[in-house]
Amino acid sequence: FPGRQSKLATALYNANLDALALNPSPSLKYLTSLEFHLMERPVIALFKPHSPPVIVLPELEAGKTRQLDYPVQIFPYGEDPDTWQAAFRQAAHASGLESGRIGLEPGRMRVLELRFLEEAAPDAQFLNAEESIAELRMCKDSAEIKAMRKAAQIAQHALQATLPKIEAGMTERQVAAELTQQLLRAGSEPELPFFPIVSGGPNSANPHASPSDRKLQSGDLLVIDYGASYQGYISDITRTFAVGQVQDELAHIHAIVQQANQAGRQAVQPGTTAEQVDAAARTVIEQAGYGEYFIHRTGHGLGMEGHEPPYIRAGNKLKLAAGMTFTIEPGIYLPGKGGVRIEDDVVVSIDGLESLTDLSRELIRVGA
Amino acid sequence: FPGRQSKLATALYNANLDALALNPSPSLKYLTSLEFHLMERPVIALFKPHSPPVIVLPELEAGKTRQLDYPVQIFPYGEDPDTWQAAFRQAAHASGLESGRIGLEPGRMRVLELRFLEEAAPDAQFLNAEESIAELRMCKDSAEIKAMRKAAQIAQHALQATLPKIEAGMTERQVAAELTQQLLRAGSEPELPFFPIVSGGPNSANPHASPSDRKLQSGDLLVIDYGASYQGYISDITRTFAVGQVQDELAHIHAIVQQANQAGRQAVQPGTTAEQVDAAARTVIEQAGYGEYFIHRTGHGLGMEGHEPPYIRAGNKLKLAAGMTFTIEPGIYLPGKGGVRIEDDVVVSIDGLESLTDLSRELIRVGA
Repeated sequence: FPGRQSKLATALYNANLDALALNPSPSLKYLTSLEFHLMERPVIALFKPHSPPVIVLPELEAGKTRQLDYPVQIFPYGEDPDTWQAAFRQAAHASGLESGRIGLEPGRMRVLELRFLEEAAPDAQFLNAEESIAELRMCKDSAEIKAMRKAAQIAQHALQATLPKIEAGMTERQVAAELTQQLLRAGSEPELPFFPIVSGGPNSANPHASPSDRKLQSGDLLVIDYGASYQGYISDITRTFAVGQVQDELAHIHAIVQQANQAGRQAVQPGTTAEQVDAAARTVIEQAGYGEYFIHRTGHGLGMEGHEPPYIRAGNKLKLAAGMTFTIEPGIYLPGKGGVRIEDDVVVSIDGLESLTDLSRELIRVGA
Repeated sequence: FPGRQSKLATALYNANLDALALNPSPSLKYLTSLEFHLMERPVIALFKPHSPPVIVLPELEAGKTRQLDYPVQIFPYGEDPDTWQAAFRQAAHASGLESGRIGLEPGRMRVLELRFLEEAAPDAQFLNAEESIAELRMCKDSAEIKAMRKAAQIAQHALQATLPKIEAGMTERQVAAELTQQLLRAGSEPELPFFPIVSGGPNSANPHASPSDRKLQSGDLLVIDYGASYQGYISDITRTFAVGQVQDELAHIHAIVQQANQAGRQAVQPGTTAEQVDAAARTVIEQAGYGEYFIHRTGHGLGMEGHEPPYIRAGNKLKLAAGMTFTIEPGIYLPGKGGVRIEDDVVVSIDGLESLTDLSRELIRVGA
C-alpha cells in the first residue's frame, strides 16, 4: 500500500493537485486496504504526497487502522455529531490543507463529507481527481488479474449449476435467489458485486430490469446478468437463454448480438481506442438494421468496481493498454418483445486479449 | 406514492424549502417506488410541491418511469457525458428551479449530482433536508411494520438454521457464507441489508469487524450481527454466543449486556426521549463498571435503511412516537479479549413497545 501511495503522489503531481480526499470507496481500499460501510458517520482519508495518510473516522472504527503495517495519523470522533467538525478541522490543520487544490471522486464523495471538508479547509478548492485515480487503477497487475480470473470462474460455475434448475413457471426473483445461492456455494465472497438481473420475456427488453415476480413462460428470452466477488475483485457476465422455443425474430437478434460480441472482442488490442472497440461491435448491429435498439455503450471497465474506467463508448479516444480490464456487452432490446445481451470480461494482453469468461455464447434452451 | 408526495409538500413548506432533489436512495423509492443503481451516470428527481416529479436519468433507465401509474416529467440523456449537463439544465428550467431553496440528503447525494445541479441552478441554495425526510419516514404505517415483522422472522429462522452447523475450526467467513445462504433460503430478498458481521474471540471486541479467515476456537465469544430484507424493509439482529466454555469474565459481561438490553427495551414508550432510552441501557453497564467499554450509542432507526432516524443516543431529545422503529443494541467490548452485543428491533406502540425480534438473549453455547 505505501507503494500505491507513492504512485498516487506522482499522479497528483501530474494533475497539479496538492492532495486527495477519499471517503469509503474502492479507491480507499486500493490505497490503504481499509473498508468502511457508508453510513451517517463520515469517514475521510487525506493523502498528501510524502506524508502518512490522515484519517478522520468514528472512534468505534479506529481499531481497523491499528492493524495496518504502515503509519497513518487518525482523528477519531465520538457519537455526538456536534463534535465531528472539530475532528475534520484538526485533520485539515495537521495535514496543512486549510487551503490548496484537493482532489476527490465526485462519484463517491457525498455532500455529507464535502460539507465537513469545506468547513475544515475554507480556502481549498475541491476538484475532480477521477482521471488521476483511473491512471493508478486502470491497468491491473498480475495479482489483480488472477483474482478477476477466479471471480469469473466462480460466476461461470454458479450459472452452470443454476441452469438445470430453471423451469417455466418460476419467477425471475426465484431464479435470482437460486443463482445467488449458487454463487456463494461456488466460492464467491458474500458481498456480491451487484444483485443479479434476471429478466424474462418483455422485461428482458429493459437492460437494467430488477427481477420481478413475473413467471417465465415458454417463448421468453431470458437475460441473466450477474457476477461474483473474489478477494475484492469482481466478474460481470451476461448470457441470454431461450425458455423453450422462441420466435424467429428473437433467435435472429440473438445471432446478431453474438456476432457483435465477437467483433468487439476481436477489435481489442493495445493501442486501439475504446471508441474503436465500441464501433466494431456497434457496426455489426447497425448493418443488421437494429442500430436503434442497441441503446447503451459496448462496455465498461471492471476490477474492484462494477463500472469503472475505461468506458467502451463512442467518443472515448483512450488508447487501450495491456492490463486494462473491461466488459464487451452489446445488446438489442425490442420493446414489448424481448432483449438480448451477451457480456464477456476481457483483459488486454500484449498482443490482443484474454477473455476471462468462456461460457457458450450460443442461444441455449432452458426450462421447457 | 402521490399521497406521500403530498405529505412531502407539507414537510417542505414547514422547512421553508422550495423543492427537494434526490438521487437514487431509499427516500426516492419511498416517494416514487423507483430504484436505480448508484453508478457513474447521475440520476436526479426534483420534487416541487403540486407538480409532477421531474426526473433526469439515462435513456436506458427511462423504461422504469413508463411503468408508473402517476405522472412524471422525464429528461433522459444518452451515453456521451458531454450531453448530460444539458438534460439537467432543461429539468431545472422546466421545474422553475434555477434559483430557490432546494433541499437534499447530504448522506446520499454525491458530489457528482451536486455539481450538475449547481451548474443547472446557479442561483439556488442547496440545503440539508434530512429532517423533513425523517418527518415523513420515521413513523411507519401498518404495511411497513408488517414487512419489518416478516424481515425479522426470516432473519430469526435463518440464524436458527445456521447455529447447528457452527463448529470450532470454521472460519468467520464460512459462518457468514452459511448464514447468507440460510437467509436466502428463509425468504430474504437477495439484496441483503448488509453483509453479516461474524466475529470470534478478540475480533468480537471490534463492533464493526468484517468476517475474517480466523478460525473459531473453544473459549471464544462469537458475535453474529446480520439482517434480512423483505419488500424493501429490513431487520438487523445481533446475538452473542459462546464457542464451548468461555471464561467467567466473558460470561459476566454477557449477563450485563443482557440486562442493559432489557432495560433499554423497558424504557421505550411514546413521549420518552431517545436519550432516555440510551441512558436506561447505558446506566446498567456503567453501574457494573464497564461504562468505558460501551463505545457506541444504544441504537439507530431501522426501516428501508440499516441506519436511519431516530438515533438512540445521548443528546437526542427527540420524543418517541407510535410507529417509530429502531434497534436496542448495547454492547461491551474488551480489547484483546472479546465483545458482546445483543440487538433487538422494536416498534413503539401506543403504550410501550413491540419487539419484532424474540430469539433467546441467553448466552447459548455453540460448536464445541
